[in-house]
Amino acid sequence: MAHELYNDGTHRIIRFDDLTEVGDVQANQCLIIHGDKGMLLDPGGNKLYSKLVAELSKYIPPQKLEYLFLSHQDPDVGAGLNGYLLITDAKICFPQVWERFIPSFCIESFVKDRVIAIPDRGMRLSLDGAEIILLPAHFLHSPGNVQVYDSISKTLFSGDLGASLLPFDNAYRVVTDFDAHIKYMLGFHRRYIASGQACQRWATMVRALDIERIVPQHGALFEGKAMVNQFIDWVAQLKCGVDLLAETDWYQIPA
Amino acid sequence: MAHELYNDGTHRIIRFDDLTEVGDVQANQCLIIHGDKGMLLDPGGNKLYSKLVAELSKYIPPQKLEYLFLSHQDPDVGAGLNGYLLITDAKICFPQVWERFIPSFCIESFVKDRVIAIPDRGMRLSLDGAEIILLPAHFLHSPGNVQVYDSISKTLFSGDLGASLLPFDNAYRVVTDFDAHIKYMLGFHRRYIASGQACQRWATMVRALDIERIVPQHGALFEGKAMVNQFIDWVAQLKCGVDLLAETDWYQIPA
Repeated sequence: MAHELYNDGTHRIIRFDDLTEVGDVQANQCLIIHGDKGMLLDPGGNKLYSKLVAELSKYIPPQKLEYLFLSHQDPDVGAGLNGYLLITDAKICFPQVWERFIPSFCIESFVKDRVIAIPDRGMRLSLDGAEIILLPAHFLHSPGNVQVYDSISKTLFSGDLGASLLPFDNAYRVVTDFDAHIKYMLGFHRRYIASGQACQRWATMVRALDIERIVPQHGALFEGKAMVNQFIDWVAQLKCGVDLLAETDWYQIPA
Repeated sequence: MAHELYNDGTHRIIRFDDLTEVGDVQANQCLIIHGDKGMLLDPGGNKLYSKLVAELSKYIPPQKLEYLFLSHQDPDVGAGLNGYLLITDAKICFPQVWERFIPSFCIESFVKDRVIAIPDRGMRLSLDGAEIILLPAHFLHSPGNVQVYDSISKTLFSGDLGASLLPFDNAYRVVTDFDAHIKYMLGFHRRYIASGQACQRWATMVRALDIERIVPQHGALFEGKAMVNQFIDWVAQLKCGVDLLAETDWYQIPA
């Protein structure tokens, strides 16, 4: 079922959170609607395509999508892009450092003149007048990774940062006990997020934003300023990725 | 044109280096043949599929491919996998940390019982008796990244590490002047390779191997022990990725 996270009559945020199949890693796809225009975030691979089109059509006609946003190059983020290019005139917002990958998963003629290459320092977009900020979040985990801040609903879509892998029989939507939630985030962050130094810099950046909720691509979301701050504080102190190399048996010739 | 890098009558290494189109980033696809079995490395996206099948069929019938190796999750590495699954019975060798991504770019029923999930510490494979070592090379650039060392030809297939973006009018195959070559590698490595600490650990590991050539996924290869050592020494001193964050204007809210 889709969940509406914000609705002020003009501006809406919808999170689709149950389209992934049992056995696959749960992923959230998010839709920002302003007036009659839409922006779809990290729509995912081919397996999700027809289900997501059917679901989002309950909220907005697909041809009203103005932007398709891919936070980074991973196949679970955008491998199904081709289908959306066929049924919409939407622009693809994609980190500039990965622009050369687009021919690997799209038919090139569909893409022509439709790519907004997001520079490393990020940028701002207007969704029919609503301000959307594309924030640099490089190395969290991808070397070129972008997050989305929606100024009206004060929602930060954090991609893989904050992802949780919840047990099937306890897949809550919203975090209520942060300390109890850490165990579902920690393993992923230690392995896939490249560096604590990048986490610290990210934390300093987002503390300057007015954030009401943080919505990761996988698992539960953080709602309300207290929970948001608890999450940011946790990220700021993370040791992960290359910080932990000395603890691993990697970089040895395998027996 | 394909180039044969090694041939002792039983064991062969072929590098396909001109299948990418002008305007796309040049990529190499490599084939290891031992006896009548083959292993195909980083076959690339859909655009390359039919050209690569045609070319490799000159060396081995595709149904004799025993392994399809994907070094990491990027779409330029394996987005065309589905096609190979259809025409071969080959196993897919893929880093365990990305195993959950396979449904994003493959039809799941094609994949059943065909995945060799490479553990973080790497592993060894037998290609019809020839020993192939899958080496951990995490964060170079992907958080989960594996390289291939072929013990018979003493070839290290280094994936994105050592990639060079050569000018179209000077696209040499083999590096002859290492110092002059650095300028074609440096920008890519500083931006896409996550950390100098990972580079140092990698260098220490591969110095224990007997390497005659290093073949990256993009650009020119390093032939002979002197050139191989020069490359390894260069990698060992690299500052890149998160080492350079302080020099960037990232992690600031974009104006």
